[in-house]
Amino acid sequence: MDKREILRLLKKHKRGEYSARRVMECLKDLPYRDLGSAKIDFHRKLRRGFPEVIFSPGKTREQMAAIIGETLRRKGEVFALRLEEETGIFLKNRFPGLEYRKEAKALFSIKGKRKPKKSRIVVLSAGTSDIPVAEEAALTCEMFGYEPERIWDVGVAGVHRLFSFLKILRRATAVVAVAGMDGVLPALVAGLIEAPVIAVPTSVGYGSHWKGLAPLLAMLNSCSPGVAVVNIDNGFGAGYLAGLIQRQK
Amino acid sequence: MDKREILRLLKKHKRGEYSARRVMECLKDLPYRDLGSAKIDFHRKLRRGFPEVIFSPGKTREQMAAIIGETLRRKGEVFALRLEEETGIFLKNRFPGLEYRKEAKALFSIKGKRKPKKSRIVVLSAGTSDIPVAEEAALTCEMFGYEPERIWDVGVAGVHRLFSFLKILRRATAVVAVAGMDGVLPALVAGLIEAPVIAVPTSVGYGSHWKGLAPLLAMLNSCSPGVAVVNIDNGFGAGYLAGLIQRQK
Amino acid sequence: MDKREILRLLKKHKRGEYSARRVMECLKDLPYRDLGSAKIDFHRKLRRGFPEVIFSPGKTREQMAAIIGETLRRKGEVFALRLEEETGIFLKNRFPGLEYRKEAKALFSIKGKRKPKKSRIVVLSAGTSDIPVAEEAALTCEMFGYEPERIWDVGVAGVHRLFSFLKILRRATAVVAVAGMDGVLPALVAGLIEAPVIAVPTSVGYGSHWKGLAPLLAMLNSCSPGVAVVNIDNGFGAGYLAGLIQRQK
Amino acid sequence: MDKREILRLLKKHKRGEYSARRVMECLKDLPYRDLGSAKIDFHRKLRRGFPEVIFSPGKTREQMAAIIGETLRRKGEVFALRLEEETGIFLKNRFPGLEYRKEAKALFSIKGKRKPKKSRIVVLSAGTSDIPVAEEAALTCEMFGYEPERIWDVGVAGVHRLFSFLKILRRATAVVAVAGMDGVLPALVAGLIEAPVIAVPTSVGYGSHWKGLAPLLAMLNSCSPGVAVVNIDNGFGAGYLAGLIQRQK
Amino acid sequence: MDKREILRLLKKHKRGEYSARRVMECLKDLPYRDLGSAKIDFHRKLRRGFPEVIFSPGKTREQMAAIIGETLRRKGEVFALRLEEETGIFLKNRFPGLEYRKEAKALFSIKGKRKPKKSRIVVLSAGTSDIPVAEEAALTCEMFGYEPERIWDVGVAGVHRLFSFLKILRRATAVVAVAGMDGVLPALVAGLIEAPVIAVPTSVGYGSHWKGLAPLLAMLNSCSPGVAVVNIDNGFGAGYLAGLIQRQK
Amino acid sequence: MDKREILRLLKKHKRGEYSARRVMECLKDLPYRDLGSAKIDFHRKLRRGFPEVIFSPGKTREQMAAIIGETLRRKGEVFALRLEEETGIFLKNRFPGLEYRKEAKALFSIKGKRKPKKSRIVVLSAGTSDIPVAEEAALTCEMFGYEPERIWDVGVAGVHRLFSFLKILRRATAVVAVAGMDGVLPALVAGLIEAPVIAVPTSVGYGSHWKGLAPLLAMLNSCSPGVAVVNIDNGFGAGYLAGLIQRQK
Amino acid sequence: MDKREILRLLKKHKRGEYSARRVMECLKDLPYRDLGSAKIDFHRKLRRGFPEVIFSPGKTREQMAAIIGETLRRKGEVFALRLEEETGIFLKNRFPGLEYRKEAKALFSIKGKRKPKKSRIVVLSAGTSDIPVAEEAALTCEMFGYEPERIWDVGVAGVHRLFSFLKILRRATAVVAVAGMDGVLPALVAGLIEAPVIAVPTSVGYGSHWKGLAPLLAMLNSCSPGVAVVNIDNGFGAGYLAGLIQRQK
Amino acid sequence: MDKREILRLLKKHKRGEYSARRVMECLKDLPYRDLGSAKIDFHRKLRRGFPEVIFSPGKTREQMAAIIGETLRRKGEVFALRLEEETGIFLKNRFPGLEYRKEAKALFSIKGKRKPKKSRIVVLSAGTSDIPVAEEAALTCEMFGYEPERIWDVGVAGVHRLFSFLKILRRATAVVAVAGMDGVLPALVAGLIEAPVIAVPTSVGYGSHWKGLAPLLAMLNSCSPGVAVVNIDNGFGAGYLAGLIQRQK
Repeated sequence: MDKREILRLLKKHKRGEYSARRVMECLKDLPYRDLGSAKIDFHRKLRRGFPEVIFSPGKTREQMAAIIGETLRRKGEVFALRLEEETGIFLKNRFPGLEYRKEAKALFSIKGKRKPKKSRIVVLSAGTSDIPVAEEAALTCEMFGYEPERIWDVGVAGVHRLFSFLKILRRATAVVAVAGMDGVLPALVAGLIEAPVIAVPTSVGYGSHWKGLAPLLAMLNSCSPGVAVVNIDNGFGAGYLAGLIQRQK
Repeated sequence: MDKREILRLLKKHKRGEYSARRVMECLKDLPYRDLGSAKIDFHRKLRRGFPEVIFSPGKTREQMAAIIGETLRRKGEVFALRLEEETGIFLKNRFPGLEYRKEAKALFSIKGKRKPKKSRIVVLSAGTSDIPVAEEAALTCEMFGYEPERIWDVGVAGVHRLFSFLKILRRATAVVAVAGMDGVLPALVAGLIEAPVIAVPTSVGYGSHWKGLAPLLAMLNSCSPGVAVVNIDNGFGAGYLAGLIQRQK
Repeated sequence: MDKREILRLLKKHKRGEYSARRVMECLKDLPYRDLGSAKIDFHRKLRRGFPEVIFSPGKTREQMAAIIGETLRRKGEVFALRLEEETGIFLKNRFPGLEYRKEAKALFSIKGKRKPKKSRIVVLSAGTSDIPVAEEAALTCEMFGYEPERIWDVGVAGVHRLFSFLKILRRATAVVAVAGMDGVLPALVAGLIEAPVIAVPTSVGYGSHWKGLAPLLAMLNSCSPGVAVVNIDNGFGAGYLAGLIQRQK
Repeated sequence: MDKREILRLLKKHKRGEYSARRVMECLKDLPYRDLGSAKIDFHRKLRRGFPEVIFSPGKTREQMAAIIGETLRRKGEVFALRLEEETGIFLKNRFPGLEYRKEAKALFSIKGKRKPKKSRIVVLSAGTSDIPVAEEAALTCEMFGYEPERIWDVGVAGVHRLFSFLKILRRATAVVAVAGMDGVLPALVAGLIEAPVIAVPTSVGYGSHWKGLAPLLAMLNSCSPGVAVVNIDNGFGAGYLAGLIQRQK
Repeated sequence: MDKREILRLLKKHKRGEYSARRVMECLKDLPYRDLGSAKIDFHRKLRRGFPEVIFSPGKTREQMAAIIGETLRRKGEVFALRLEEETGIFLKNRFPGLEYRKEAKALFSIKGKRKPKKSRIVVLSAGTSDIPVAEEAALTCEMFGYEPERIWDVGVAGVHRLFSFLKILRRATAVVAVAGMDGVLPALVAGLIEAPVIAVPTSVGYGSHWKGLAPLLAMLNSCSPGVAVVNIDNGFGAGYLAGLIQRQK
Repeated sequence: MDKREILRLLKKHKRGEYSARRVMECLKDLPYRDLGSAKIDFHRKLRRGFPEVIFSPGKTREQMAAIIGETLRRKGEVFALRLEEETGIFLKNRFPGLEYRKEAKALFSIKGKRKPKKSRIVVLSAGTSDIPVAEEAALTCEMFGYEPERIWDVGVAGVHRLFSFLKILRRATAVVAVAGMDGVLPALVAGLIEAPVIAVPTSVGYGSHWKGLAPLLAMLNSCSPGVAVVNIDNGFGAGYLAGLIQRQK
Repeated sequence: MDKREILRLLKKHKRGEYSARRVMECLKDLPYRDLGSAKIDFHRKLRRGFPEVIFSPGKTREQMAAIIGETLRRKGEVFALRLEEETGIFLKNRFPGLEYRKEAKALFSIKGKRKPKKSRIVVLSAGTSDIPVAEEAALTCEMFGYEPERIWDVGVAGVHRLFSFLKILRRATAVVAVAGMDGVLPALVAGLIEAPVIAVPTSVGYGSHWKGLAPLLAMLNSCSPGVAVVNIDNGFGAGYLAGLIQRQK
Repeated sequence: MDKREILRLLKKHKRGEYSARRVMECLKDLPYRDLGSAKIDFHRKLRRGFPEVIFSPGKTREQMAAIIGETLRRKGEVFALRLEEETGIFLKNRFPGLEYRKEAKALFSIKGKRKPKKSRIVVLSAGTSDIPVAEEAALTCEMFGYEPERIWDVGVAGVHRLFSFLKILRRATAVVAVAGMDGVLPALVAGLIEAPVIAVPTSVGYGSHWKGLAPLLAMLNSCSPGVAVVNIDNGFGAGYLAGLIQRQK
């Protein structure tokens, strides 16, 4: 393809259609276009499958509005994370075609988007306090076009709750398991199913939890193989991986 | 099935064959049998797709021999990791049908196994010292039946080396990126491709590396989404995830 | 009871009141109900011996009200921890039959509960700042039905204070020792008595205390055997263990 | 007895056998002897219920022999922990009446001891590599006179293995749960049973396990109440607590 | 004294005034009385040489007022640390005979106290931000009755500033060296003088300073012998040690 | 100079103008004056090449005004860092001849200063959130008199962005690379160019980033030689080093 | 240049000298050659100014011999670090033209190399145990062609030793300051001179030194600006930076 | 003295014996000699009161012999720490006038030294494994000329052992308290006595002890004021401080 493009350029040059200077101009960008085209390609890919992500913490309401405005002007999709409700609703009201989902603390484009289709991605949360991170993961899957199965509050303090969902878990393509406190859930799930388990430690806990260190280490040291870990509270990263795996099928 | 079993019990009870007490006794165990059957299923799945893994550190040569002998007697496949050469060769010589691969420090069954077929899994190592961990990952893929593309020594100290493999990377289904020192490789790769990147920090480094802490944190904090992390030096875990993802396709 | 429920079902089926299908429908849930009944059982146990616990941090006043309202509607007992005074009193006023204990930062059902009986559980606090955690432990014991001996401010800075309570300590069934700062108290107590010592490090301290790390490590490394440790500030967990031990007697 | 000793002194004094000075000399030590007698009392208690413990690491074979010889001369019971096999057998051969148990790496008196009686203490190990620590806990229970139920290799990688022992676990008085790697086992067990769970993290693991930090934190942050934690690899401490709890019944 | 008391008891017993049982009863308490008398002694010592210290963080203005009121009622001296200015002035106005020193964030009794006399204790601060901690140390010395030499802002960024005070430093009885950031000052001073250097790391810094960890470690690892370290920001503890050393002379 | 001063003293002594005692008196101070003159020299150097730096955190608006007023009175240059906008503008309005640069959160003298000249220092920021730290570095270079090339948002998530600036990077005299999250940028840049790379980790990140620990370790462990690291968020320190290197040329 | 190369190619193609295929072949490599030429350029630069570095830890004598043999065959320069004496001398004897310097634990090419010329780089070691790291730095400078001033054992325990070298330090272009224990030296030096100070923490120390953590943090938190830090024990990295700075002059 | 030296120089100059240049030459060194004389003074002080200390770890037997030989040649006193027995005895045999004390792992001069006199310094060890560190402290006191009271094995596991030494502790001038495991001893002692307590954490322990971190933190966070801490295992540093305090009396 690139090859063909170069051959085409050379032909045009030989035929005198393109001056040496013009060919050179094209070629000059080649290394960058090769990489640069990755950029465009990447962007296009993202635009088709995944919008640009805006992390909101540390940005003012005005900065958020400016970035979103610019994104929409460039016909981009908006996907803004970790937005408090007040700001989310303010921005939603200001920009038509956006929706704010409180559970996921996220603002995103709905205009022109198809409804995500049911998928075999499963998103689990160990406790109710872990739900915002789990919702961020679930919404990220939806941005890929896949609606995941959401199963909340199935931590090991009452393990029977998890077992009642075994059938759904066993036919999953990917499981996102979100857990704070002891972070035990992903290891348990991975021991029961075949699909890859993407483990998300959360900062939910206190004392020797050290803002997520405890579940992070528990997950990295899982005895069951098949567990991959992302950063503490990184629901987006986990949903992104689940989306990638699902898309490959 | 379970359904049928319950109906059968009820019938026997109605016919007076089973007393209420006896039915109750059977029913009491049901949840456990339900779980107990999970065991068989799980094992069968594992036996079909993946052998049992034996971690060798802390086991004597004699203990290893006993476990391997027992596994072979049960017609199981052997897959033993982190074996020093001397012990590996001793065991290989003792048990026919096993092979010891020095690069991966692994001993495994070859008898009756089909040659792994070329796959689009790519395994990268940042440095030459990371190769044993990378080989463990690659061999684990082979145990799944997938021969990965191995690309060694493409760390960011000379980033052009990596770029010359961009085409292979861009068509990968999953990339295992193994890196010690600064652990920079997976983040860089994830920024260039679409497939999930499974990042393996290694204990290769010194000083403030703290036996893998530095690359582990770098990988968990990757700015590029699409990076999943496993434990330090856990080549097996990374290869296992790559195998799972490949198998789903 | 569950047993009785099954017997009742079987009887109804034998009498023709319930069809096999209907019984099966009921029983279909049994595995889950069995586990689920474990849940109910658990709940019953909890209700008899211990109510459901609601951790308040991160929940709004409204969310708390909703959860408590629901619990009361289900005839459950309320036991809510780590509630600031204002919220505690607001909720107490809203829901009759609840009491707010400021020292323990806890809200709990009193309606229909018997007064806890004097027990040989002893709860110690090393300093006055450790009292809220110690009170959480003591109240948890009371929720089990056991009123513990409370001994406050007996840290090792003035060790004679502790020694004057030696008699009480020596006949204890379990001692909860709550300490921040250096966390020295549990090791000292365990060297003096026979009962198990449940050690609770607190986040009371500054500098190299690192929010409870210092006393946590001191307690885990106690030279005196007989010391069991719970998470930093986890008065509830310690009281729960003391209650379990007392109940077994 | 001490009481009797004092009465005896007073009698001798009244009979003029001991001068006031001599009695005083004896009594001078009383405060200390009273505390000191606590020592003796403690020792007696220990001797009846529990021998003195000798931690072997860092001691030479000769030092061990000297300590053991002295203990036996004082009619004490020997309980020496963390002894490598060679040293253990050397000492066992040298001192009649001792036994070396390889699994627990422990040397202990058997002469004149009654066989421990079956108890409702349960000792669990998550993996086979955790067995030495679990055996240390189990043997410590035996030194108290209680033979625990040993259940090995029931980690969550294959959780059905654990569930098949649910009945035994549910009637336990205390459960010692020993686990390295992710340290998930105690939290899972505590969610299923009523008895106190004494959690022992082990140093079995690698990488971000940091010699037991990962399971230690997982255990301290258990979502299920009823989990008490001891130091990494401290099987003795856990067995000691289980023994104390059992003894109180 | 205790000796005499015992002799007296024995005499009474011989004379038949006290029964053996009664003497025994008295003697039983001896150890506790012995320790109990330590309490009084200890308190007297403190009252003579040093007042009780009240740490203010976490206490409300009302709680502070209550404690101070009680202390004054018991004719005690007040020494309250880490009080913000507003609260400090409020309390000073409420209780006559107290003074609030803003630089040290401390409130203390002045009524009936002699002016501290000039001493050879030297208190150094490395930076201006370290002065509050240094002032806490200096004021603590004054509470002992010793006015220290205060030398502020002599950190190693401009080491010549320190050298101009060498003469004063070299005749010191004890030097309190307070430093945040790199914590270099105490090691440098200890290399220049003979007196003990009490090093106080402060939480002044940012980034990899980790709230005082950096200077704490630098001080603990001083190449110059003669450096003793107290907790981060613990000006009181350092001043207390300097006061103890001065008092012994 | 000092030499001349000594010769002058000796001459005066020989001529009998100064007594031996007086010469000795002068000489006694010599060590201190020698160091003391270093002070003046040092200050002059700083005044010529670099103003005194005022770290603003923890200082009130009034304290800042006092320090700045004093500095200006002494004809000093003002360079105040980490000032929030409101305070910065307040101070700028109060003191003529100062400028507040919001991007760098800095207030500095412009009166009588020459415009910085274009230099071959390059300042890179990996993300947009890293810009304040990068601007602090860039402004510090300007205070040296060198205007650096600013290149923002060239993190490795889209590595092609960086490559388009390769030419500028390759002719740099020093590169300041500012990065939060994974901290990957400096290692990548150092592998591509010859100039020293001064790496600045930032506290931009979340979870296992631990306020800059992750990028700090990544940078310290860079596989590419030529990377020097400063404290987390220390843009000033990095700009200072770049200025020193540039000035030497 | 590249531009000219492309024009030349196009001309040759137009003149029919190069077929489209051949031009394409050349151009195909362009992106890589652009980066690839960096490689060659880089390598050439390295060969001229700096040889390839071989880290020896973890490599066998045979592996070292193979790498060195290959390097020499490719006419490369050898620079191998952290080689124990025995191996170093073995390799030196095997390969003519190499020298082993015991103090620096390094093996390097001398054949065809000019003697390094005296430079104004200064390498300091705080203690005698830090000398191997300091020598590694010094030798690295020599590999650049610059002989540094070596000043050993000038730690702050006896600060006068350092001051006697002030003149040399003040005219330095770059100072490498190597220090273990408290890591105080670089901050002190940076306060006295103008040149950049490259700080190397070493693992020399014990206890709370944590293998270099203490001096690493002290150096990162230096109050004196002008300090850049490299990894613990990374003498090579520091020497490399000093060489880069010196080369630019 | 220095004074006299300067007067002598000036006289010689006035008499024309020394040229101005020559005097200047002498004086040129004065600042350094002034500091340098501090060195000599320091050394003399050390020689009188304290010898130079040689840390042995990492030094070969030959290096030790060379350093000791040189020290003796310069009429210095030898004080070498942390020497294994074999090396210690080898050196003792080689150099007459030295003694090796196995308990303290130290080699030191005895020739010409007076026997240390009984002092009121008390050195405590919590456990028997802490004795080598405690002996290092005790021997350091002896090198100052003060024989301390040694009290071994008085840890809090049996606190009555400590109380029997209360009288000795209460009249101490300084107490060195050495403790591994939980590090509880110094806090307990400081609560009972008036003298400064110098706390030495040791690396004796396992698991979450992290080579001395646990007792280090416990000691830094002591609730009892009057505790100063030195580095883990730094018996020498503690003994040095005790010696300094004693010497001042």
